[in-house]
Amino acid sequence: MGSISEVPLLSEKHSGIPQNLLEKAKNAKALIYETRTKETNTRQRLPIIPQGIEKDIFIRALEKLAEQLGKDNVEVNDKPLVDGWYMEHPNTHDMMPILDDEELVASAVVYPSSTEEVQKIVLWANEYSVPIFPISMGRNLGYGGAAPRVRGSVVIDLGKRMSKILDINPDDYTCLVEPGVSFYALHEAIQAKGFAHMWIDIPDLGGGSVIGNTLDRGVGYTPYGDHWACHSGLEVVLPTGEVIRTGMGALPGNNTWQTFPYGFGPYSDGLFSQSNFGIVTKMGMTLMPNPGGHESFMYAFEKEEDLEPLMEIIRPLRIGNILENVAQVRHAIQTIAVKGLPRTKYFSGDGPIPEHVFREQLKKMPIGDHTWLYYGMSYGPPHIRQYKLEIIDKEFKKIPGARKIDPEILPEDEYFWSRDRIAAGVPDLVELLWVNWVPNGAHVAFSPVSPIRGVDAMKLFNLGKRRHDEFGIDFLPAFCVGLREMHLIVEIVYDKNDPAKRKAANDCLREMIDDAAKEGYGEYRTHLVLMDQVADTYNWNDNALMKFNEKLKDALDPNGIMAPGKSGIWPKRYRGRGWEMGKESGAKSEGDGVALTESTKF
Amino acid sequence: MGSISEVPLLSEKHSGIPQNLLEKAKNAKALIYETRTKETNTRQRLPIIPQGIEKDIFIRALEKLAEQLGKDNVEVNDKPLVDGWYMEHPNTHDMMPILDDEELVASAVVYPSSTEEVQKIVLWANEYSVPIFPISMGRNLGYGGAAPRVRGSVVIDLGKRMSKILDINPDDYTCLVEPGVSFYALHEAIQAKGFAHMWIDIPDLGGGSVIGNTLDRGVGYTPYGDHWACHSGLEVVLPTGEVIRTGMGALPGNNTWQTFPYGFGPYSDGLFSQSNFGIVTKMGMTLMPNPGGHESFMYAFEKEEDLEPLMEIIRPLRIGNILENVAQVRHAIQTIAVKGLPRTKYFSGDGPIPEHVFREQLKKMPIGDHTWLYYGMSYGPPHIRQYKLEIIDKEFKKIPGARKIDPEILPEDEYFWSRDRIAAGVPDLVELLWVNWVPNGAHVAFSPVSPIRGVDAMKLFNLGKRRHDEFGIDFLPAFCVGLREMHLIVEIVYDKNDPAKRKAANDCLREMIDDAAKEGYGEYRTHLVLMDQVADTYNWNDNALMKFNEKLKDALDPNGIMAPGKSGIWPKRYRGRGWEMGKESGAKSEGDGVALTESTKF
Repeated sequence: MGSISEVPLLSEKHSGIPQNLLEKAKNAKALIYETRTKETNTRQRLPIIPQGIEKDIFIRALEKLAEQLGKDNVEVNDKPLVDGWYMEHPNTHDMMPILDDEELVASAVVYPSSTEEVQKIVLWANEYSVPIFPISMGRNLGYGGAAPRVRGSVVIDLGKRMSKILDINPDDYTCLVEPGVSFYALHEAIQAKGFAHMWIDIPDLGGGSVIGNTLDRGVGYTPYGDHWACHSGLEVVLPTGEVIRTGMGALPGNNTWQTFPYGFGPYSDGLFSQSNFGIVTKMGMTLMPNPGGHESFMYAFEKEEDLEPLMEIIRPLRIGNILENVAQVRHAIQTIAVKGLPRTKYFSGDGPIPEHVFREQLKKMPIGDHTWLYYGMSYGPPHIRQYKLEIIDKEFKKIPGARKIDPEILPEDEYFWSRDRIAAGVPDLVELLWVNWVPNGAHVAFSPVSPIRGVDAMKLFNLGKRRHDEFGIDFLPAFCVGLREMHLIVEIVYDKNDPAKRKAANDCLREMIDDAAKEGYGEYRTHLVLMDQVADTYNWNDNALMKFNEKLKDALDPNGIMAPGKSGIWPKRYRGRGWEMGKESGAKSEGDGVALTESTKF
Repeated sequence: MGSISEVPLLSEKHSGIPQNLLEKAKNAKALIYETRTKETNTRQRLPIIPQGIEKDIFIRALEKLAEQLGKDNVEVNDKPLVDGWYMEHPNTHDMMPILDDEELVASAVVYPSSTEEVQKIVLWANEYSVPIFPISMGRNLGYGGAAPRVRGSVVIDLGKRMSKILDINPDDYTCLVEPGVSFYALHEAIQAKGFAHMWIDIPDLGGGSVIGNTLDRGVGYTPYGDHWACHSGLEVVLPTGEVIRTGMGALPGNNTWQTFPYGFGPYSDGLFSQSNFGIVTKMGMTLMPNPGGHESFMYAFEKEEDLEPLMEIIRPLRIGNILENVAQVRHAIQTIAVKGLPRTKYFSGDGPIPEHVFREQLKKMPIGDHTWLYYGMSYGPPHIRQYKLEIIDKEFKKIPGARKIDPEILPEDEYFWSRDRIAAGVPDLVELLWVNWVPNGAHVAFSPVSPIRGVDAMKLFNLGKRRHDEFGIDFLPAFCVGLREMHLIVEIVYDKNDPAKRKAANDCLREMIDDAAKEGYGEYRTHLVLMDQVADTYNWNDNALMKFNEKLKDALDPNGIMAPGKSGIWPKRYRGRGWEMGKESGAKSEGDGVALTESTKF
């Protein structure tokens, strides 16, 4: 069960997605695939050799590794670019590059089949001082995808061959998975077993790895949306090759690894999230009980400034669990963008689409003109939902002009139904349609953490709007409201084949990160190329936290081989050597002087 | 607000505790106080000097420290034993010793007033290689109280002077506290501000430190009962003296330290729970919204073997949040013990009270004869509660003879009302009454983690019963049912002045820990003297987790000064030197060859 080849793609079987949307999504995929198969000049002189190692030694080292893993499982990255989005492997690049296509590339990709083989790779990397970069499935879209932080790293693609669902426990509502298990695969396996009493929680796109998303502290949209908080138990290969199990997993013969997260002594799981301190090879995850009913609802708010009172209304309802899931408050322009059509259909000029243009469009659409949409879900049997929905309705309607949208009026391809599926734990892909907004569309996220407050929402909205206007980019904001905080999520959609557009996106992001930090807002997660900058904003007390992280890094990874630079944490041998890349947009920084000219296959 | 002297003790003002119970609790306190003021022979040759340091150097070192902190804030432990339970300081001992009174003693106690002073102490400890042992308030009853793990350590009593509630945020439902803030103090402060919309969650006894309990991963009895999961943000002094803030606290000027726990990069908070990797000087805590109504309920079950089907019924209801709080399933003998009267009132023989004796007693009591009691609380407005309570009633009554107990029949001193207060976030102390079960009563806990399953409950029950019978100890089991797991909590109540009783308690615990580990059950938390043994049970893959912890310890605490041996983690300089104590009951192990004969005051 659950091998990578069984991960459902866009087949109708796994979704309630209307056929026309599926087609669009498929087209989106094809579009990306097409643009990634182009061969660039750079491509001719690949693969990259990791800096600091002689080419011949590296080649011999790969041969040694191939002897251990099998020739087919050590692949030099010297082939035409292939999209890894929902395709099979190799996972050699960020399929949504924010720098030059060939900036964040692997020298080779290796495919372990077991924890033992991951250990072998790690020991090998220590022997040859080769930077390695583990990925689960490489689908961290908008945050770097399958790409390594350091050019020429050897990517460890865990998901290709380690994709087993090791356990689904229908009594405890838990599971144990390997890195290659996607949300789709997990959902399908639960359905196949007939466990209708259990739901999974999924992020906006269901094609990614459960482990990968959780380790990056991604969120979903049911009451189990805080994936990190919902995990229980890790198996980790340390940078020096040892294997630990955390929590109750450290007790031989235990029966609670997936039910009690903490174990005894220091609770170290958090060290392995957003870090480069180890490779997670197994993870326990709790599953949500079927709530016995659910009901999506949507409210439209007229004016931009309605955001302010809306957040004040949301906060106590969210903390009080009347609003039960991570709710999205999305700007009206997203209503248009997520339909999956190019922006040129609405506006052919340069710069951001003028407000009057998108308002004209909105008027023609079922929801009608508005500025903000709230997407929520109520859980439980009808009378329990009614209790909560009545409170919500009363509160939301305190805002003049607030309208509850009757789902009955919405066509089957309306985005509402995608959110409805997601908040009910059914994996979905519709969200990716808005990459079609521009040609060769890719996206990259600005995602600062904020209190749930009107004044903060407006401040962040204005901050983003100002910078988007400055760089001539359409501003597509949404607020994801957690329990006591919210993330503003702004996805910049750009033409990834256009260096000027990439640069504009990168520059805009960097300005927004700095603007936000000055006001006390920090990113919860970021793209590989922005990690140094974001880490630099968490610099309280003379960068004490980073110094602490570096101390841990030096202790756990003395040879500095594990994902150097991830989350801004550099091993000693890289520190202070100008490894930061892309602060000046597109600037290459390391390791591109050495490239193989021949194709090498083991 | 919130200074230690304002921490409410047993005053009527802070509780709904009936007067007669208060008196009993006061008597219990007096009893302990009385027994602790005795002077022992050992006491005459105190204080202990930490091993490895010359007496003169140690005295001069303390003088140096006193110059920095003020003479009154560096106190040598050479005075008569004073109970620290709910008394003022000093906190020099475990007030519930499981070894000899003078085994786990501090050489001195120091009282910092600020994070900066904690840094000074830590730097001082590094300079002189003095083991230090931080405590918040020293009220970790049953797990070591105020005592250090290594005899002769300098105890850092954080709570005496660092007891400020730094923030209570009525919009975000959060607070920020120092180590000396007790659950009572926090509750009182929230009441004093009139914030009726916010509850705190409290453990069984409300007199302890919010930080201390949370760092030891203690639990409470509202839906916010997982204290560790509910915290957000730490300020930590590292063993080498640096100060970090975790989560959003690392971002200068942030506004989300208490609302978003994770921040950016590795989430390291867990490293500082149940560990010796740092001293937590500030902690954020989330507060529970007033649920708009609450209702305690209790069910009685007749037979011992009812436990098995009961757990099978509880599990899905608990995961499904129909049972909303950490519920207690308590054995009938506890119904008697918690009344606060000595066991001799019921039975004057040796060995465990025979079943027919306590059954006779039960028949005279309002609840009547039974074997198990379930204490629960339903939250929300009446019709929401009714929905849940009806499901619970239907399910529980599937067990033949199950009875719902009408609270109306229960007198005001019935323990039910204590659980009612606790599950409503009102601090309480009634639980401590059962230390009166034996003369000079103290308690120590066996608390293994188990799946919520009938078969496991019975296995653990029988395991504990067998060992208690073997050692002639009354068996007082309760199951605390978390979300997907339960802890069996067995408190052994013993006469702390009777070496034979202490030895029996210790031996019984050690046998149960090993018995449980063989069956896959591990402790979630343990007493200082049992930490090595418990840590040894988490030994998967050749003790890989402990080796990992030791690697972290060596990196963070190179001089090995911070709480050596806590959770079984020994710094390099102590490792392999036979520091384990008390495996043979009462055996002293280190540092007791050097004692000052004169009283030294700075």
